[in-house]
Amino acid sequence: MDSLCPMEKVPGFKCATAAASIRDWPEPRDDVAVIVADAPAAVAGVFTQNQIAAAPVKLDKKHLKAAGGMARAILVNAGVANACTGREGRKNAEKSAQLVADRIGAPVEQVLVASTGVIGRQLPMDKMETGIAAMMDKLGKAPDSAFANAIMTTDIRPKQASVVLEQDGGAVLAGCCKGSGMIAPNMATMLAFVLTDMDVSPKALKAALKETADSTFNMVTVDGDTSTNDTLIVMASGAAECEPIRKASGKRYDRFLHGLYDVSLSLSRQIAADGEGATKLVMVKVTNAARHKDAVAAAKTIAESPLVKTAMFGNDPNWGRIIMALGRSPATVDESKTSLTLCGKTMFSHGAPMLFDAGELSRLMKSKEVTLEVDLGLGTAEATALTCDFSYDYVKINADYTT
Amino acid sequence: MDSLCPMEKVPGFKCATAAASIRDWPEPRDDVAVIVADAPAAVAGVFTQNQIAAAPVKLDKKHLKAAGGMARAILVNAGVANACTGREGRKNAEKSAQLVADRIGAPVEQVLVASTGVIGRQLPMDKMETGIAAMMDKLGKAPDSAFANAIMTTDIRPKQASVVLEQDGGAVLAGCCKGSGMIAPNMATMLAFVLTDMDVSPKALKAALKETADSTFNMVTVDGDTSTNDTLIVMASGAAECEPIRKASGKRYDRFLHGLYDVSLSLSRQIAADGEGATKLVMVKVTNAARHKDAVAAAKTIAESPLVKTAMFGNDPNWGRIIMALGRSPATVDESKTSLTLCGKTMFSHGAPMLFDAGELSRLMKSKEVTLEVDLGLGTAEATALTCDFSYDYVKINADYTT
Repeated sequence: MDSLCPMEKVPGFKCATAAASIRDWPEPRDDVAVIVADAPAAVAGVFTQNQIAAAPVKLDKKHLKAAGGMARAILVNAGVANACTGREGRKNAEKSAQLVADRIGAPVEQVLVASTGVIGRQLPMDKMETGIAAMMDKLGKAPDSAFANAIMTTDIRPKQASVVLEQDGGAVLAGCCKGSGMIAPNMATMLAFVLTDMDVSPKALKAALKETADSTFNMVTVDGDTSTNDTLIVMASGAAECEPIRKASGKRYDRFLHGLYDVSLSLSRQIAADGEGATKLVMVKVTNAARHKDAVAAAKTIAESPLVKTAMFGNDPNWGRIIMALGRSPATVDESKTSLTLCGKTMFSHGAPMLFDAGELSRLMKSKEVTLEVDLGLGTAEATALTCDFSYDYVKINADYTT
Repeated sequence: MDSLCPMEKVPGFKCATAAASIRDWPEPRDDVAVIVADAPAAVAGVFTQNQIAAAPVKLDKKHLKAAGGMARAILVNAGVANACTGREGRKNAEKSAQLVADRIGAPVEQVLVASTGVIGRQLPMDKMETGIAAMMDKLGKAPDSAFANAIMTTDIRPKQASVVLEQDGGAVLAGCCKGSGMIAPNMATMLAFVLTDMDVSPKALKAALKETADSTFNMVTVDGDTSTNDTLIVMASGAAECEPIRKASGKRYDRFLHGLYDVSLSLSRQIAADGEGATKLVMVKVTNAARHKDAVAAAKTIAESPLVKTAMFGNDPNWGRIIMALGRSPATVDESKTSLTLCGKTMFSHGAPMLFDAGELSRLMKSKEVTLEVDLGLGTAEATALTCDFSYDYVKINADYTT
């Protein structure tokens, strides 16, 4: 990873943020943000799988289709998720997009919106309108990292990542995201945005985004609670002086894909490590699965097990919990071919328990990063899930909030 | 429910318990227990769905098949789960059954075994042998509730239930179980046993057990972590003076089924309410689902959501979390037809949020039992999941244990 290029510095885009008091925040803060492309830019997005999707998610899907993968702007607000808000919520999402479209002179289909915050509450449209107007007056003047800060809810720190593609004339990929895991007290969500000044066709962008999301953001799990608002959008302005990428193959596409993967993986790791109450990043790597979907299912089931996650918090090399979670996963498992390694020490080999020094292992687990490796011994597929441990603070954050 | 008839009082069976020091318990206690039928009794069992099943589970399935649904004895130990123990573990389970079979003069296939405790550790066979011998010398002399106490691990209290079938000459059904939910620090499991003096054929017993388990024990979830050892066994001695039940239909079968359901539901509720760190029992009722499997999936997904469970602990009427968990479940959901009621107050009706008094609702939630009702508005199927809230003590119990 190169030194950070914030979203605000990507050629072809202008950012702005404002304090719109969408909620009564404990302290004054920016809570609306916008990205405006100088000209229509290629765009691709992936969204929550939750059947009860928030109004902005529904609108974005419609706009992406209608505008043929081109967009001019993304409007984001923190504080209210605009989920479970019925007809009024849908109208508010549309109106928010229209307000931006009118100001920048673009068709409304070229404006995407994203919300994060309380579920079941309506967007305060007067405040949204004031906030949007304030941002339009200072487009392109946002200081570095302002965007990443404005979209946060219960996040402890802003999450940003970038890469410079040296072989492509120094084009950049810069991203940021928010989300204390999939979930937050009653905040909804993971939002992630990646901007690049490369010239990438909507089709190639979509292919790259899908491939990347499945192995990065979609492998993050804090507790399995997929939100109603999850959104990942990538936009390419084409402002860089380099050849366009028109199809999802070839060396230049591969370099772009690699860059997008690096940015996405860094952001994903930051989300897992900053999960609610987390004291460490936990990586669950499953190897030699019969099929890719087995590797994914096994890694995610282990990563979501409260038993495994509390053991990680307690630095307890309690491997029976890991095997139990593996066994209850939908993945095909053969106990006699299964091995388990924790912090580099093998504890279970081909179905039999191994002797190990529990004290030493507990000391190894006292780290900011812990890796669990499960070898299924059945094939060649692998996958890695990213999660965090489960601490007292997780309960505190999620229980001590009372409406 | 009638006043309690403990396992020790069911005609046709004799119980015994002993202290075998299977583990270094903080205080001396009984940790092996046995039920011996005076003559071969009809038996049926249901076991964990976990692909990595413990040695006793594998042995029992084999024995139930080989003995044609008849058994003489069940041997249980607490402290070591005999799971993930490879070939040696399988041999130890077989040897344990053989030791009992030899003492009571029964074929080994008529002896079932169940273990609960640490995963990945071998049974101390010398201690098992001494414990079994001690029990055989005092068969039938166990004081009331001794069996229910001997099989506990991290349970706070023994769990027992019984019914008397007045219309069947006062025949009884008496059961007990253990398990702080599906899981415990590194203890494995839910074990449940029900005895009756009715005369029920193995086939009818199996049918009744399956029907009952699906709507009671299988609807309990503390955190979705299905153990390697879950076992539910029912035995019928036929010692009561009443007509035999030979088939899975008719009035007498229905009465028996109803009694088995009552005992199983009471035990299930006791497990949920005694879940690790639990401060309350939470019932998640899903109604008007399109299909039964939708109702089950929706109820279980909500009941397993850490977000929902921490809100219950915090008495937070944070209904967005419930809708989110519903939406990510595999159940078919239509937001515009969905309604949600918490403690009798409707918070979300046909896709739109309702006004409610958050303070009043929070006070209503400060109860030992809380009910969530989700109406899917799509059909007529329903299911209820039983769970508990998620407290600081859950994390404490599961993290503060270090090997």
